[in-house]
Amino acid sequence: MKHPINILIINGPNLNLLGEREPHIYGKNTLTHLINKLNDKGKLLNAKIHHIQSNSESTLINAIHDSKKKIDYIIINAGAFTHTSIALRDALIGINIPFIEVHISNIYARENFRTHSWLSDISSGVICGFGLDGYFWALKTAVKRTQKNKI
Amino acid sequence: MKHPINILIINGPNLNLLGEREPHIYGKNTLTHLINKLNDKGKLLNAKIHHIQSNSESTLINAIHDSKKKIDYIIINAGAFTHTSIALRDALIGINIPFIEVHISNIYARENFRTHSWLSDISSGVICGFGLDGYFWALKTAVKRTQKNKI
Amino acid sequence: MKHPINILIINGPNLNLLGEREPHIYGKNTLTHLINKLNDKGKLLNAKIHHIQSNSESTLINAIHDSKKKIDYIIINAGAFTHTSIALRDALIGINIPFIEVHISNIYARENFRTHSWLSDISSGVICGFGLDGYFWALKTAVKRTQKNKI
Amino acid sequence: MKHPINILIINGPNLNLLGEREPHIYGKNTLTHLINKLNDKGKLLNAKIHHIQSNSESTLINAIHDSKKKIDYIIINAGAFTHTSIALRDALIGINIPFIEVHISNIYARENFRTHSWLSDISSGVICGFGLDGYFWALKTAVKRTQKNKI
Amino acid sequence: MKHPINILIINGPNLNLLGEREPHIYGKNTLTHLINKLNDKGKLLNAKIHHIQSNSESTLINAIHDSKKKIDYIIINAGAFTHTSIALRDALIGINIPFIEVHISNIYARENFRTHSWLSDISSGVICGFGLDGYFWALKTAVKRTQKNKI
Amino acid sequence: MKHPINILIINGPNLNLLGEREPHIYGKNTLTHLINKLNDKGKLLNAKIHHIQSNSESTLINAIHDSKKKIDYIIINAGAFTHTSIALRDALIGINIPFIEVHISNIYARENFRTHSWLSDISSGVICGFGLDGYFWALKTAVKRTQKNKI
Amino acid sequence: MKHPINILIINGPNLNLLGEREPHIYGKNTLTHLINKLNDKGKLLNAKIHHIQSNSESTLINAIHDSKKKIDYIIINAGAFTHTSIALRDALIGINIPFIEVHISNIYARENFRTHSWLSDISSGVICGFGLDGYFWALKTAVKRTQKNKI
Amino acid sequence: MKHPINILIINGPNLNLLGEREPHIYGKNTLTHLINKLNDKGKLLNAKIHHIQSNSESTLINAIHDSKKKIDYIIINAGAFTHTSIALRDALIGINIPFIEVHISNIYARENFRTHSWLSDISSGVICGFGLDGYFWALKTAVKRTQKNKI
Amino acid sequence: MKHPINILIINGPNLNLLGEREPHIYGKNTLTHLINKLNDKGKLLNAKIHHIQSNSESTLINAIHDSKKKIDYIIINAGAFTHTSIALRDALIGINIPFIEVHISNIYARENFRTHSWLSDISSGVICGFGLDGYFWALKTAVKRTQKNKI
Amino acid sequence: MKHPINILIINGPNLNLLGEREPHIYGKNTLTHLINKLNDKGKLLNAKIHHIQSNSESTLINAIHDSKKKIDYIIINAGAFTHTSIALRDALIGINIPFIEVHISNIYARENFRTHSWLSDISSGVICGFGLDGYFWALKTAVKRTQKNKI
Amino acid sequence: MKHPINILIINGPNLNLLGEREPHIYGKNTLTHLINKLNDKGKLLNAKIHHIQSNSESTLINAIHDSKKKIDYIIINAGAFTHTSIALRDALIGINIPFIEVHISNIYARENFRTHSWLSDISSGVICGFGLDGYFWALKTAVKRTQKNKI
Amino acid sequence: MKHPINILIINGPNLNLLGEREPHIYGKNTLTHLINKLNDKGKLLNAKIHHIQSNSESTLINAIHDSKKKIDYIIINAGAFTHTSIALRDALIGINIPFIEVHISNIYARENFRTHSWLSDISSGVICGFGLDGYFWALKTAVKRTQKNKI
Repeated sequence: MKHPINILIINGPNLNLLGEREPHIYGKNTLTHLINKLNDKGKLLNAKIHHIQSNSESTLINAIHDSKKKIDYIIINAGAFTHTSIALRDALIGINIPFIEVHISNIYARENFRTHSWLSDISSGVICGFGLDGYFWALKTAVKRTQKNKI
Repeated sequence: MKHPINILIINGPNLNLLGEREPHIYGKNTLTHLINKLNDKGKLLNAKIHHIQSNSESTLINAIHDSKKKIDYIIINAGAFTHTSIALRDALIGINIPFIEVHISNIYARENFRTHSWLSDISSGVICGFGLDGYFWALKTAVKRTQKNKI
Repeated sequence: MKHPINILIINGPNLNLLGEREPHIYGKNTLTHLINKLNDKGKLLNAKIHHIQSNSESTLINAIHDSKKKIDYIIINAGAFTHTSIALRDALIGINIPFIEVHISNIYARENFRTHSWLSDISSGVICGFGLDGYFWALKTAVKRTQKNKI
Repeated sequence: MKHPINILIINGPNLNLLGEREPHIYGKNTLTHLINKLNDKGKLLNAKIHHIQSNSESTLINAIHDSKKKIDYIIINAGAFTHTSIALRDALIGINIPFIEVHISNIYARENFRTHSWLSDISSGVICGFGLDGYFWALKTAVKRTQKNKI
Repeated sequence: MKHPINILIINGPNLNLLGEREPHIYGKNTLTHLINKLNDKGKLLNAKIHHIQSNSESTLINAIHDSKKKIDYIIINAGAFTHTSIALRDALIGINIPFIEVHISNIYARENFRTHSWLSDISSGVICGFGLDGYFWALKTAVKRTQKNKI
Repeated sequence: MKHPINILIINGPNLNLLGEREPHIYGKNTLTHLINKLNDKGKLLNAKIHHIQSNSESTLINAIHDSKKKIDYIIINAGAFTHTSIALRDALIGINIPFIEVHISNIYARENFRTHSWLSDISSGVICGFGLDGYFWALKTAVKRTQKNKI
Repeated sequence: MKHPINILIINGPNLNLLGEREPHIYGKNTLTHLINKLNDKGKLLNAKIHHIQSNSESTLINAIHDSKKKIDYIIINAGAFTHTSIALRDALIGINIPFIEVHISNIYARENFRTHSWLSDISSGVICGFGLDGYFWALKTAVKRTQKNKI
Repeated sequence: MKHPINILIINGPNLNLLGEREPHIYGKNTLTHLINKLNDKGKLLNAKIHHIQSNSESTLINAIHDSKKKIDYIIINAGAFTHTSIALRDALIGINIPFIEVHISNIYARENFRTHSWLSDISSGVICGFGLDGYFWALKTAVKRTQKNKI
Repeated sequence: MKHPINILIINGPNLNLLGEREPHIYGKNTLTHLINKLNDKGKLLNAKIHHIQSNSESTLINAIHDSKKKIDYIIINAGAFTHTSIALRDALIGINIPFIEVHISNIYARENFRTHSWLSDISSGVICGFGLDGYFWALKTAVKRTQKNKI
Repeated sequence: MKHPINILIINGPNLNLLGEREPHIYGKNTLTHLINKLNDKGKLLNAKIHHIQSNSESTLINAIHDSKKKIDYIIINAGAFTHTSIALRDALIGINIPFIEVHISNIYARENFRTHSWLSDISSGVICGFGLDGYFWALKTAVKRTQKNKI
Repeated sequence: MKHPINILIINGPNLNLLGEREPHIYGKNTLTHLINKLNDKGKLLNAKIHHIQSNSESTLINAIHDSKKKIDYIIINAGAFTHTSIALRDALIGINIPFIEVHISNIYARENFRTHSWLSDISSGVICGFGLDGYFWALKTAVKRTQKNKI
Repeated sequence: MKHPINILIINGPNLNLLGEREPHIYGKNTLTHLINKLNDKGKLLNAKIHHIQSNSESTLINAIHDSKKKIDYIIINAGAFTHTSIALRDALIGINIPFIEVHISNIYARENFRTHSWLSDISSGVICGFGLDGYFWALKTAVKRTQKNKI
């Protein structure tokens, strides 16, 4: 059996409230539900899912630093930090691992300040407005691109 | 057999050059290749793929108008019209069919003027930087959402 | 009998959807209904109504060019081209025929980008938010001003 | 005979100079001429014309307050207050009577600061550049809309 | 005899009015006159002149696409599209043929919106305010640079 | 018995409509009700309440000028003048009496133009969104601070 | 005895320095003094005071999340996070508990960057420049509004 | 003896406080002192001084209207209206009498919002920062220019 | 006889063309004429006039440096350097001699870029649009203020 | 033999480095080479070439002043002064001689600050990105236009 | 022996990656190397070096608070927090200890958003682009200035 | 003995006033003192100090040009030219010698216009707010980097 691909899923501030917070925007499924689904899909793709959710910017930065040499691809929904954290941007640049930016809701259809992201221009792709499916399409792409690079 | 879902794929100006034009940005596959792939995937999902590519804004607007009552979901890569055409925006609002916005390249990592889209805030989702896969994830989502609404 | 006054009515992109598209904004009457009404009113005023609707910017520009020496006054609802087309502006300047700008809805009460028009400052007047009546008031004014100039 | 419709015509600062002030912009007819004409046209339409002109913002605000429950529709040319008075805007919102904004000249063809109006987005329509006819078209529309609502 | 150099002259919207439209700005010579002159000068330089004028953005884009592998240099006066068409820009980038931007009038001495061009930064040079001579200087330069590259 | 503290309550344009105007924003209590309440509370605090409401900027300026040497503290809700009147600002600076700025509604949760105040930076405090209570808290603070200064 | 109302007081970064830090701006009383005073006043109003001060954004977010279903009203002085933290804003929106924004100093009389708050437009009221009294007025209002809602 | 020249001195809001208000900025002389001085100097120059000071914009506008055909030159210190009143600007344009703009203090050395004047570009000259002397230099110039025109 | 007051007149770039350059803006009198007049008026006021005109920024800066301890007041018309030279501003601050800014034409009635001056906010007064008289009023004021300071 | 046409070539700061400075942008030919070529071409056209290069703004201004009545046309490459020198602009306006603006490189393809020129809107034409040929085309045009005016 | 001077070195987010992260920008030396060097140099200068690096804003704020009365001078490289953290700014103001801002790379030669710092205007000096030497020069200056103040 | 390193110190406008001009900002030491100190330190480092101070932009540009092939490193305090001179920037780019930007005062703590420098992004480092020490640290760095490159 091939060595599995390591994917880090990062969920930023307030995503622990998933399923409770503004369900008309973020849907009714919880974070646990999302991670279980990602684990299931990861198994089919020979990918090991690592997951962190935190409301703390430094916890996320530390997790990004720790992923160096252990993780093949990152999938990040940085929540509100998307719009404010240059430190997170620098952490992602610093470790030089490709990542995909995901948003559950369509951030362009909401408040104007949500249309600027400190991550998009350094990401390999952005997907938003697809609900939890965004994570799944990101996972498939991450696995596919990692496999291509590993050959 | 169920009645198939009708999906309209719209490709805007210069996408006829796909495979030739700036391949480091847009990849090496041609538009024909993309449509063949979409047809294949559509068959698996019981979706009928309709396709139009044009460099003419009015041709695209007319196609959008004609899709009324015939099409369930639109997937649109409006190319440069993304950044300039309010008429296209109005056409999409006018027919009231949900649509997904796709870009092959990561428009946020390119010139600054490519970060504003006249379509994003009225779309149901945006996906960019995933190459041709963006169309496939969009197709899957379009089919899934149409099925959910039809029940 | 006096020679009739020639009035060109120009309707821009998406106005073919009149009556169907966002009726809470644009009302329930169709474009055909509008043109019939304008013909009726034109007869009473000894004005011959010429009409063009197109979703194509170049078709509109060509129609403007062709109106030179044939048309006395233009009444134009340029739809979304109002906000984007400098070419249309240049065409109207180029033929040197006076024109009135009409909008069915109150464009100032809608999205911010609808408050800039490439035509207003070169028009002889602007009327918006009066529904189809805007065209009728414009017609009366166009006839009146043409008659004054012809004496 | 039906109960007449009550229309308040409001003319703001410097409009008392009509006929004298910059006649190449505002024409040669005086304010008295305008009001006489409006009275004549009002009689034909079964509308009673009330009129106020003042150079004082507070006098205009008080007149607007006093129109509550007495006036069916307001036609306002707020002159320079168009561009500076939020208090006038608040007064019009406060009494909840529909109104039409009129300008004699084409304000879009003049200084740039005349293109912003504190009233347009809360008006039911805007007409400018039609000389005194703007008031007449506004009057007809005000009567027509009031009749429609009263039925 | 050497194989001639192929030069495509592109004239955008409203340039068909040349000689009639605002002659104080654009001069009194017609488009036909310009093309005849360019043909004459082309012959002296062993250059074959291809010409297209259109008011349609898509016609211009298609012409640009078609010039691939047939044309050595493009000389373009995009008229009003200069200021609005990213699609034209993308077409020119897409085919990778060098081009010179020409304007008959000095666009910097006119309205402010004419000072931004979507083409200048990707052109090999800009010439404006030289009347029809701008085309001739552009032609000479295009021939000279093509010859240099061909050696 | 101690000499009472003199407090001037200033209410600007349209606040005479209190209780009628947009009650979902400003509540159902009238201006008379507010002043009665302030008088009652003033008596408990040994403060004499002076009150002026006007839709006229000059009437308010004159009242401010007249308060010199008679008034200890001003509580002002300048209504729409908050956002437009530098003359009011200058009047308050000119007499050198401390003042508190009150707004009944939360002006930050409304239109964007309501977030700039010409008074806030020269006030001793701002309170908004507390309904009529804002005046009462301001009154208590004004009395307390005057007492502190008088000792 | 009635069930007490639960009020959460949140003090953001650097407010632990109260009494030491820039006393000409923030006064000489310490944070402990403030909390003691709030407890005293809470007892009189049958309100239980919960308090958190932290320099950590995530600690504050977690405290907000934890308040769900336990707290009736929040009073928040977010310090510098007022101007930078969208995550805090999202946390407050996410739990759907009403809150009042308090600032000890008049933030409008200080640096320009302190005039924008990420919280004001979603708060039920803002009070600033009243020193510690701002907290007390906020407490009274919070209790009063909770009682009104509970009936 | 020659017919005297008529000069209207206009002083806007808060200038009645001259001598009391911020004397470090505006000096210690009162408005009465200024007018007496102007009368004295007027006599020497065969100029009749008319004077109005008001805190009311409409009173000033009316005074400007009334000056038509009676006044040769206006000297205006519009106070805070300088920065906010387009109505005053329109009044001055409307009567077509030349005027000089005066400010006692150097408005460019104060708050940034005092650097924009609605009057400067239509005045025949601006003088500021010369204290009361500004009025005297303006008077001399007004007399001199009127004499030159009258010959 | 009293020691004379020393006044330095500085004229910046292109003012050597006075009398020839755009006489509709700058008048027909030459620089020599101006200096002669200033010398005459200086004698009456017991002021010694020093003069420099240069098109060189450094020559002007050097002259300003050299005036230290020799000059009592500076009158400067910096021409185009008004709008571009921070070095000139720094020179004037550096020597700490009061100065008056003069412009012959009304710079506020010309191109927009002429409304910003690097000198106004550090000057003791600004006078513009008074032709050569501006220099004379400035001279009188400079003498008067110097005398006041010297006593 | 006809009296020759006098053409002044002005080269601004750093153009003395031509051939050494950033040759990938400015080419490898020196300033001497350019002037020799211009002299040669001038002879063929019966034009006398005058040339000045200076790094000093005042030297250039003086040269422009001196050209009055001696020079028929100016060709100017103002280098960095293009973007900063209003004094140069004023000098060119002051002498009223037509001029052409030349840049060796395509300034629109470089840093953003190079896209604004203080000269373009008052020039008779602009040519950039043609290397040294820009000067030659400018020379031909200058000669041609002078001849046309002289007849 | 004199009491040593206490210097606190603060390194913000991602500086723990020093030596690994983007070595073409930040160099190849590690954070440990830097601290060792600083300790060495500190000994020579009789300065005790305290050091903290953290990716957590609150940890840095707490360290700043704790330095009160223990630390003489702070040297801070706040990393990405430089551009986003007003809380850090407030902490530094709150404790009133002088500090120097250091950046390893030249932040002005990088992305535009790195040119704004929330710390520079309250620092006693800024040094950037000198690699690790920036810390050493800052250390020498901090020691020198502390010694001067202590005398 | 090694060949010495050649360092050019450039001081821009008004720096000749060092020691006299605004000593609270620039200190009390003169320019001569600075140069003597730099010479002393240069000797210790085997560096030959060349120095120029001028208030003339062209003199500085010429000095920069002349330094080509003679100077190893430049240390520049361009004074006010820092904020206005693109010509100086171009000169420094043109000769391709590395340079360090020095400011005596902390330019970020002064007027806003001093925060933009035309030199910073092309310098190898910036140091400001360190008084004359800034030059000394710059000198040490310049020598060190030159030595590293020479090996």
